Amino acid sequence: MNNFVVSKIAEDIPEAASLKFSMMAVRLRQRGRDIIILSTGDVFFDLPLFSFNALPYKLGYHYSDPRGLQELREHVSRYYQKEYGVASNPEREVLVSAGSKVLIYLGLASVLNAGDEVILFEPAWASYSEQVKIAHGVPVLLPYYEDVSNIKNYLTKKTRAIIINNPHNPSGKVYSHQELKMLFDVATSNNLYIISDEAYSDFTLRKSFISVGAFDKEKERVVIVNSLSKNLGISGWRIGYAITNERILGLMFNLNQHLISCPATILEYYVVKHFDELVAITRPQIAALLVVRKETENFMKEVGLDCLPGSGTFYFFVSIAGSGLRSEEFVLRLLEEYGVATVPGVGYGKSCDQFIRVSIGTEPADRIKKGLLAVRELISKTKTAA
Amino acid sequence: MNNFVVSKIAEDIPEAASLKFSMMAVRLRQRGRDIIILSTGDVFFDLPLFSFNALPYKLGYHYSDPRGLQELREHVSRYYQKEYGVASNPEREVLVSAGSKVLIYLGLASVLNAGDEVILFEPAWASYSEQVKIAHGVPVLLPYYEDVSNIKNYLTKKTRAIIINNPHNPSGKVYSHQELKMLFDVATSNNLYIISDEAYSDFTLRKSFISVGAFDKEKERVVIVNSLSKNLGISGWRIGYAITNERILGLMFNLNQHLISCPATILEYYVVKHFDELVAITRPQIAALLVVRKETENFMKEVGLDCLPGSGTFYFFVSIAGSGLRSEEFVLRLLEEYGVATVPGVGYGKSCDQFIRVSIGTEPADRIKKGLLAVRELISKTKTAA
Repeated sequence: MNNFVVSKIAEDIPEAASLKFSMMAVRLRQRGRDIIILSTGDVFFDLPLFSFNALPYKLGYHYSDPRGLQELREHVSRYYQKEYGVASNPEREVLVSAGSKVLIYLGLASVLNAGDEVILFEPAWASYSEQVKIAHGVPVLLPYYEDVSNIKNYLTKKTRAIIINNPHNPSGKVYSHQELKMLFDVATSNNLYIISDEAYSDFTLRKSFISVGAFDKEKERVVIVNSLSKNLGISGWRIGYAITNERILGLMFNLNQHLISCPATILEYYVVKHFDELVAITRPQIAALLVVRKETENFMKEVGLDCLPGSGTFYFFVSIAGSGLRSEEFVLRLLEEYGVATVPGVGYGKSCDQFIRVSIGTEPADRIKKGLLAVRELISKTKTAA
Repeated sequence: MNNFVVSKIAEDIPEAASLKFSMMAVRLRQRGRDIIILSTGDVFFDLPLFSFNALPYKLGYHYSDPRGLQELREHVSRYYQKEYGVASNPEREVLVSAGSKVLIYLGLASVLNAGDEVILFEPAWASYSEQVKIAHGVPVLLPYYEDVSNIKNYLTKKTRAIIINNPHNPSGKVYSHQELKMLFDVATSNNLYIISDEAYSDFTLRKSFISVGAFDKEKERVVIVNSLSKNLGISGWRIGYAITNERILGLMFNLNQHLISCPATILEYYVVKHFDELVAITRPQIAALLVVRKETENFMKEVGLDCLPGSGTFYFFVSIAGSGLRSEEFVLRLLEEYGVATVPGVGYGKSCDQFIRVSIGTEPADRIKKGLLAVRELISKTKTAA
């Protein structure tokens, strides 16, 4: 079959590192081994199951409104207004689709022409670069050690958009007012879009999250993408949403119709009915997780592990700089020798090969600590002669 | 906002005609008007709701296996083997994702390089052309009056793939053994892929459907895409699947990870548990619908309405050639003046502006007849002086 021509872009796209290593861990577990899972980009809340029979399930068997159920758009529109001060018209400026992943892609596909450049900040969530490529754009990555303000050195005539992830996977960084203002000013002066992935918007201390949408009253150049996956702990339900101006939203909507249709209708009805309850159930659990985050951060300091600064989400981007190993080899050995699953940093950018991602969304505190001690031990065992 | 640059491809993509006109009809209905819906590309079966509590719903809150649940891949793999004689390895040659729509796109994005041409046959389901464009390819359309065998006149050095829809939306055509063999031979001699959208595979009389996959033992160049939406009547659940060789499947899988992740996990568990029951419940209803199809065909002959030949699916591509109206205007007037919703033919290709699509999946036989009489009356009322 080797003479068969395929897409060069597709050929160049690797498997998502976080999924790959999570699946390796799951398979080892299925074979009976006790694995500490610090790899999964997911949070495990205690959630009840409300009745499906009480829903209009016959309607659920069919396509929903192609923009997502009106009531669901109203819920998320109100939520963004109330929680983050970003107003939107749920009729024309909100699109609900099958997860925020595809909505980021729809945003990119709506604004990029072939060869347009998109600025990303390493560590950059793996799918951003790949989605830019799938949209025939060119990802331009700032290494992790560059300050956000150095973005100006990376702009060219071809730059069309910036993607930010706020709060940030994998570092936990929550963008400051000053940083967001600076990025918004850069976008304005250079006529760029900002695609803001805000999937972890409620995972911050003292509501420290600010949406860049708050700087852009008309949502002229900001495309907000968010999701019920993390904030409500239902990643498996595949419901995300985008908020932007009517023109861009219209382009995204048309693309969405030809690629997706809508999320699972029955689950939209479920979420519409139980939106406020789900928020009420998950908020205290998010608060508890942020306490674990703080404790984990303290523990890392105690045992001498470094990580990139951050205070939100349930991730740490932990340095393995002391080790002589590259991140993939480190992660593989950590899994095999210690039964601890993490994600290699190189999946988040070339500059990040001396980091691993540690997620604390799925394991209890004692097992997280045990996992981190294994990280320290493996660093120590593989130390380079300085 | 007019100085903002957007994607030229996205700007060029229209709203999906079938969804647009279905939504117009739904809105009129919501305002209390009795609308005969012959527009919706959907089938309304009588389906029970099995218990969700009996499912592993806690797992359902999280991402599933990124290829789709193993058991679901086994179900659809067995189904294709048993029903259509196409064998596949569920581990490496099957991908389950959020609907067949996105899987067709993933197939295209896996094989096309920018500027590659894809052959489509008019009437062509609207999203095919748009998906080819989104993948930076070029759709090449054969007008409806050309025989499939004329494909040879449309091949160029840039042709990379053929999309067929078998059984066919909107004509109901079921490709013959001879046609499929010819297409497969053309694909083989010209090193092309065939993306075969088989979403209506069970909507044929006397099991007359043949998968083109049956001609390609190694699935070297055939990418089969199918769905639970039509055959099981659960379009709102957004579960589709693809079957092809390991290499192409691998490319589709990687793209899928960066764009989709997986379908709604809880619904995958549901379908795994109730697959055979759902098949048993829907088969007799499909048979009944095919009887209605035959009756509708006879009725159209009686009243002098023409349509393209076909025997499967629940669609008719009805000629309005007697009318002086183009298809969009015809459909709008039919909706406003007669309360009958259909879809304009032009959405299926330039050559099809004197057709409308009539779907019989959602209305009882008497209302379908009433709708068709309205079509005849409007043709007659708008007749051109010959």
